Amino acid sequence: MKIVAMIRQVLMASAVAVAPAYAQTLAIVNGTVIDGTGSAPLTKGVVLIDDGRITAVGSKRDIAIPSGAELIDAKGKYVIPGLMDANLHLAINVDTDLLIKYEGRYHEAIQESAQITLKVGLTSVFDTWGPRAPLVKARDEINSGEVIGSRIFLAGNIIGYDGPFSPDFLGGIPKPYITNAFANRINEIWQQGVGRELMWLGPEDVAEKVSEYAAKEVDFLKYGATGHVDHFFIAFSPRVQNAIVDTGHTSGKTVQAHTTSIESYYMAVEAGVDIITHCDDSGPNTPLPKDYIKRMVDRGIACSVTATGDAQMAAMEEASHPLMPRKTASRENISAMIEAGATLLLATDATVKSPEMLADYAHLIINVDPEGSLGESHFSALVGFEDLGMAPMDILKSATSNIAKAYKVDDMLGTLEPGKMADMVILDKNPLKSARNYRAIHRVIKDGKVVDIDALPDGSTGGA
Amino acid sequence: MKIVAMIRQVLMASAVAVAPAYAQTLAIVNGTVIDGTGSAPLTKGVVLIDDGRITAVGSKRDIAIPSGAELIDAKGKYVIPGLMDANLHLAINVDTDLLIKYEGRYHEAIQESAQITLKVGLTSVFDTWGPRAPLVKARDEINSGEVIGSRIFLAGNIIGYDGPFSPDFLGGIPKPYITNAFANRINEIWQQGVGRELMWLGPEDVAEKVSEYAAKEVDFLKYGATGHVDHFFIAFSPRVQNAIVDTGHTSGKTVQAHTTSIESYYMAVEAGVDIITHCDDSGPNTPLPKDYIKRMVDRGIACSVTATGDAQMAAMEEASHPLMPRKTASRENISAMIEAGATLLLATDATVKSPEMLADYAHLIINVDPEGSLGESHFSALVGFEDLGMAPMDILKSATSNIAKAYKVDDMLGTLEPGKMADMVILDKNPLKSARNYRAIHRVIKDGKVVDIDALPDGSTGGA
Amino acid sequence: MKIVAMIRQVLMASAVAVAPAYAQTLAIVNGTVIDGTGSAPLTKGVVLIDDGRITAVGSKRDIAIPSGAELIDAKGKYVIPGLMDANLHLAINVDTDLLIKYEGRYHEAIQESAQITLKVGLTSVFDTWGPRAPLVKARDEINSGEVIGSRIFLAGNIIGYDGPFSPDFLGGIPKPYITNAFANRINEIWQQGVGRELMWLGPEDVAEKVSEYAAKEVDFLKYGATGHVDHFFIAFSPRVQNAIVDTGHTSGKTVQAHTTSIESYYMAVEAGVDIITHCDDSGPNTPLPKDYIKRMVDRGIACSVTATGDAQMAAMEEASHPLMPRKTASRENISAMIEAGATLLLATDATVKSPEMLADYAHLIINVDPEGSLGESHFSALVGFEDLGMAPMDILKSATSNIAKAYKVDDMLGTLEPGKMADMVILDKNPLKSARNYRAIHRVIKDGKVVDIDALPDGSTGGA
Amino acid sequence: MKIVAMIRQVLMASAVAVAPAYAQTLAIVNGTVIDGTGSAPLTKGVVLIDDGRITAVGSKRDIAIPSGAELIDAKGKYVIPGLMDANLHLAINVDTDLLIKYEGRYHEAIQESAQITLKVGLTSVFDTWGPRAPLVKARDEINSGEVIGSRIFLAGNIIGYDGPFSPDFLGGIPKPYITNAFANRINEIWQQGVGRELMWLGPEDVAEKVSEYAAKEVDFLKYGATGHVDHFFIAFSPRVQNAIVDTGHTSGKTVQAHTTSIESYYMAVEAGVDIITHCDDSGPNTPLPKDYIKRMVDRGIACSVTATGDAQMAAMEEASHPLMPRKTASRENISAMIEAGATLLLATDATVKSPEMLADYAHLIINVDPEGSLGESHFSALVGFEDLGMAPMDILKSATSNIAKAYKVDDMLGTLEPGKMADMVILDKNPLKSARNYRAIHRVIKDGKVVDIDALPDGSTGGA
Repeated sequence: MKIVAMIRQVLMASAVAVAPAYAQTLAIVNGTVIDGTGSAPLTKGVVLIDDGRITAVGSKRDIAIPSGAELIDAKGKYVIPGLMDANLHLAINVDTDLLIKYEGRYHEAIQESAQITLKVGLTSVFDTWGPRAPLVKARDEINSGEVIGSRIFLAGNIIGYDGPFSPDFLGGIPKPYITNAFANRINEIWQQGVGRELMWLGPEDVAEKVSEYAAKEVDFLKYGATGHVDHFFIAFSPRVQNAIVDTGHTSGKTVQAHTTSIESYYMAVEAGVDIITHCDDSGPNTPLPKDYIKRMVDRGIACSVTATGDAQMAAMEEASHPLMPRKTASRENISAMIEAGATLLLATDATVKSPEMLADYAHLIINVDPEGSLGESHFSALVGFEDLGMAPMDILKSATSNIAKAYKVDDMLGTLEPGKMADMVILDKNPLKSARNYRAIHRVIKDGKVVDIDALPDGSTGGA
Repeated sequence: MKIVAMIRQVLMASAVAVAPAYAQTLAIVNGTVIDGTGSAPLTKGVVLIDDGRITAVGSKRDIAIPSGAELIDAKGKYVIPGLMDANLHLAINVDTDLLIKYEGRYHEAIQESAQITLKVGLTSVFDTWGPRAPLVKARDEINSGEVIGSRIFLAGNIIGYDGPFSPDFLGGIPKPYITNAFANRINEIWQQGVGRELMWLGPEDVAEKVSEYAAKEVDFLKYGATGHVDHFFIAFSPRVQNAIVDTGHTSGKTVQAHTTSIESYYMAVEAGVDIITHCDDSGPNTPLPKDYIKRMVDRGIACSVTATGDAQMAAMEEASHPLMPRKTASRENISAMIEAGATLLLATDATVKSPEMLADYAHLIINVDPEGSLGESHFSALVGFEDLGMAPMDILKSATSNIAKAYKVDDMLGTLEPGKMADMVILDKNPLKSARNYRAIHRVIKDGKVVDIDALPDGSTGGA
Repeated sequence: MKIVAMIRQVLMASAVAVAPAYAQTLAIVNGTVIDGTGSAPLTKGVVLIDDGRITAVGSKRDIAIPSGAELIDAKGKYVIPGLMDANLHLAINVDTDLLIKYEGRYHEAIQESAQITLKVGLTSVFDTWGPRAPLVKARDEINSGEVIGSRIFLAGNIIGYDGPFSPDFLGGIPKPYITNAFANRINEIWQQGVGRELMWLGPEDVAEKVSEYAAKEVDFLKYGATGHVDHFFIAFSPRVQNAIVDTGHTSGKTVQAHTTSIESYYMAVEAGVDIITHCDDSGPNTPLPKDYIKRMVDRGIACSVTATGDAQMAAMEEASHPLMPRKTASRENISAMIEAGATLLLATDATVKSPEMLADYAHLIINVDPEGSLGESHFSALVGFEDLGMAPMDILKSATSNIAKAYKVDDMLGTLEPGKMADMVILDKNPLKSARNYRAIHRVIKDGKVVDIDALPDGSTGGA
Repeated sequence: MKIVAMIRQVLMASAVAVAPAYAQTLAIVNGTVIDGTGSAPLTKGVVLIDDGRITAVGSKRDIAIPSGAELIDAKGKYVIPGLMDANLHLAINVDTDLLIKYEGRYHEAIQESAQITLKVGLTSVFDTWGPRAPLVKARDEINSGEVIGSRIFLAGNIIGYDGPFSPDFLGGIPKPYITNAFANRINEIWQQGVGRELMWLGPEDVAEKVSEYAAKEVDFLKYGATGHVDHFFIAFSPRVQNAIVDTGHTSGKTVQAHTTSIESYYMAVEAGVDIITHCDDSGPNTPLPKDYIKRMVDRGIACSVTATGDAQMAAMEEASHPLMPRKTASRENISAMIEAGATLLLATDATVKSPEMLADYAHLIINVDPEGSLGESHFSALVGFEDLGMAPMDILKSATSNIAKAYKVDDMLGTLEPGKMADMVILDKNPLKSARNYRAIHRVIKDGKVVDIDALPDGSTGGA
């Protein structure tokens, strides 16, 4: 059963068969190759793929195409690394009706979301908050080739937050509508031993809990440096933040912090995280001090942001959208970071939203909110970077190699280089000319295979 | 899928195969037959059944057993008409999680409820509030023999009330938990054009709406003479109540009123309803005046009540249960009605409640509330009648022939007489000796066939 | 201390000294006298006043002016009976802060309101819901001449309603903000033994409670035929309504019903009330049937209404004001009543509202709501009658003799006839030419004395 | 008008005349003098007082009593320094009805509270949260001798918290009960530019706001290191905490932090505060690590605590009081601090509570809650220290010299030494024998004058 399709009430192509593995060499020829390293584009380039890996990248004249290789003619087209989203949420939105209706099948919803994202060029996605076990199941089935979809890296819970039916999200358990048993059961799918109770503990105890959690098949760690709803409050002391970061690193995980104020940003930088999520969100009228940003840059900490473009800002202004003040500060922060040479990561915070939920909030969200539309938001966020002055090559890196490096998976992902996994996108138009051209997707290749993107579900109906 | 079983989280015998029709004559012999007419018990009685109908009832010496008849030896046992419940609710309780989880499958839950009730001797049940279309589907599949279960008669909505997500029940739409789209969709399953909006209309307009509703495959009509939550308010003027009653009668339906105060009771009597539901509920400290009761008796109006027994009252008193004052008045009313010779109908108001919901309200309900446990409450309500002084034969009639007459189905149900449908219960103990003996079920026969009650789901886990 | 002035945060003339009684004859001469009986205007009329009573009304040539009489030259002006408002609320609006701040001094607020109303020509006002004891105190001090203000007739509580901190008004007791002790104490000032609990009782018991209440120095009785917030529900059965009306009449009081739906209107007519309050309010889309209106007219029942004028309707439409549908039906009802020859009474439902409260609801109320502005609303309501087609002389009667008759005080008030109390208004412009001319107040005379209206507080700041 | 008396609905002696200044020398003779320095009690001691100051303390044989001195014979009695409370709230409790009713007169309530506290021996009190301007007015009038009462030192707002009608206290603005205008006006009396908005700022901006606030006639500063309701959240980063502490010290104020978790405690110690308020409150199941306590002791930071005695704990256990777990951890913490030689300060967190409010929460508070009863709680808190093993002399110091030192007013208060202000208490029983003996108050002397304690209001009715 296709949950997301049901949620969206749209028809979708039913069978998303996984392409059979084949040993044959694949050669993408005649295109302009932009490899994501920052090197100049290579016209008439060749990318050779064998057994899911890139074996060679270079000029047509330097590389011999093996006989028998399957050719993809990319003449007049642009070959770039598979895109990535540093921050999204594949599971259904935490609406009560969806949580109830699809209990036990969250992994199916996650997989459909991963197909929506793959269709639009995101060969890898980083899910920074969601139900751990269903995400693990969805990820493993995709990685094993059983189900098609974007490659998933997952954090599971945000350390320090309680589940959907809590003050951190929906606001608690609505009585008499929802039973405690149901709410607690759902919350537990999220909390997994690293919820609000950690705020009572000292560094050693928190480290122990985080260590246990890190062992639960998650790919990276994320903690709430500030409250999710009470976003001016700080959740953890410096010593506890250090303990979380150290524990994560000891466990071989990257660690990121969710920050929403200038002081929490500063503290996260001090704690030595790898990535700051919402690093642009410093409160309604308090842009980040320049020296705070410099400190982050100096320490090589990456920053995961959703850039709001000029058109969206105009729409928000027109609508007197309540997010306006925060977005104004966010844009100022992003501009300052670009200027400071920060490593920015493309992020969307997107999720699947049901049309029914969207209808209730139409006046607040539709056509205006830059966050939230899975399969759509990354396009507008790339334009947002452009509007804020980011250089074209840096925009590409923000969605590819920067993310791979920040998440420490650059040994296998993020660029078109020999030895890397063969994830790439072929565009009809030049992305370095306009960020709008990322929409011009011609082919998506993942694991060295051409994805049948027409067979994948479309996420556009739920979004802007 | 067995929804109720899932709700109850208990295992149940899966296959409830419908017994094949057989033309063979069935003879129940040697038992004491109490036919429900009020006649003295017939020892060594014989009941002959052919093709689902009773063909003869009488003394062994008066009735010839056809050769080839299948014999059921009821020696030492008691044969009574199939029991009935004049007021229950087969659909899942209106908990949000159940409403969401089982949307589209409410009829399955209804059918399982009808199996729970059949197992405990209720061969016919009158569902006085529930989702119309699912109830119709459940009823029709049972009547056609496709699914086994108690014979269902249904009212659908209570005329004048809005659906579950309204002030009449759960209290409205909880935001941000539930979308308007979902709540409105569910409400509409109940409302069906005869919701709260009728309170704005005059008699002609209400009559038109009721007439349209009566045509929608419902078996009888019920209207809210008072508000469901605002139970001191009167919902309809005398003229509108007359219009509802007349329209119902013209449409060939019996009409009952839900009343919860002495004046609404009086008005319903004046309106000429067939049955008053909760006729015992006259407010916390305002028992019904004797002359009001006499008026009801004189007009031949039946009264559907849940009698609270001595033990339950003691438990409520012990627990300072909030329903105490109402139940005290209720018992006083029932006693007065027994004395006045009123036609009382066994009713339970029972429904399937999830253990999760019960857990949240354990302090209020469990072990104390006489209403609510499908498959259990009718036993305690019969004892309640006994505790309040009702004569043994009248108790039997309250659960059989009184109900059939009040609902005008006594041409086919309610007694053991030739020509009636062959619904009956064989008890191991004498029900005229103690109302507790109704629990001693030996056999349940419906439509002339012995029900495999061991294969039916057990409703006891959800209840007292 | 001037509470209303404080509430309104405006300066007001402090000393409102009561003019000393004087035995001298007062003669209003040369004006056009419109006596409120419906007789044609008398040009060059004379009104003689002695000791607070009218002693003669007639043409200059027929009436001898006693020598020594004080003369008021009304040349070019119009002398009409003192205006009345059949439905207003003099006490502070039931905002929590006002209820707390002025506890113990509600009577002072009431008296200031009665000065605001006197200033604008309302020599008598009928307070149809308010705190009984403070209203009695305020009335008695005004009647004794101790304090100046409009003559007050009061109902106190609306029979069947609970006090301000209840579902009938503010919605209950807000925890943890308000203590039960405070809320109950305030509620009791209103309830006075005739609150919601009456809905549980039969006619005899209600009659007893109403009889006790009628003895408590109130001038007339009003009962809630429908709920105040739950305005589609009916509060009392026909028998109870009859009991209330009969008890009121036996106690020498007129009785009025608050109705808000077509069926409650019908029931109130049947119950034989003297006045129906909000007789125009029949629900959002359900105008009163013509035969219901005819029934009211035939029985001589008066109808207390606030007419919404064309300009206000246009403003409401412009603002998509939530009251729009009700007002559309209201206007249709009033037009039909005018056509049917009904006895309509000018009413405003006005109260003093604090600017702070108004600020919170500015988007809903200001400039649009025709109800609510003490000292202002009756002017717009008179124009409303005109816009709906009422004849000029009937408009005058709606605000004078009709009200006096309906409240059975026409032996002393309502017209300019010998023997009546000398309450009158002298206008600069002809009210029969345009209802807008009622604003052109030249003099207000009450109890035969010219009121120093410049010294009275101005109510305009709080209103439209 | 006596607000507190009105609140308490008790009669109190009305005139609390300030004793006239007299130049005469006062000599307290023959008593046992315990001077609060920790020195051994001096039997047959003499304390000489001149012009409000102590001029000599010593043995009878060492000190010459000036001729003409007024003698107070303290034979068999115990002379100790005036008691102090390091943490209480003199203003009315933030109940909505009191906030409204006494708006504009909060200072009167504060003064009455200061009389309740003076009556029971508290010659100086430290108000750690309250309305700044009314507290300043109350303090200044007491200090000038215009009004009698305990010497007041005040913090005003807790830096980082919003006012009563906010999530930090009552929970927000209850609509439709309270207008925004009123709520905002009251909140502003508290907030004074150092409310929640500071959480968005960096250290420089916070320092500026705190500096401005420190200039507003407050005696010391207190900041919320954690949220008041969201007590696991941290309000300020280390840098901001440092900025607050430094700014306070630069402004010549002591600085204290409100902490409610182990990590916030640690951070406050690091920030170098002078006092930690609620240093015993480390969460429900997380007692403070020993090394955290040692750190505090090493740095000379004092700790303001309310000790719960054995009897209270037993009562709480009996009542399953919700505060039980926190109090268990609190006691464990206090014991550990006593053992570690920490400087503990007697504190009560007491306030005046209206009997009406107490009635609503009787099941939670009465007879059980160790906090809250002005005029009573310090007695039980002293016993609490004793029950937890504090040495008798240390108990005396916790309520006298420790507090004076921690608040840096030990140059003038806290001990019986020459040059200090002549505040003292004469007890009938030996406080070093049992902490219960602090109740045995014989005389209270403030500013060298015997207080007429019988004329002061009694706070016992509102309390335990």
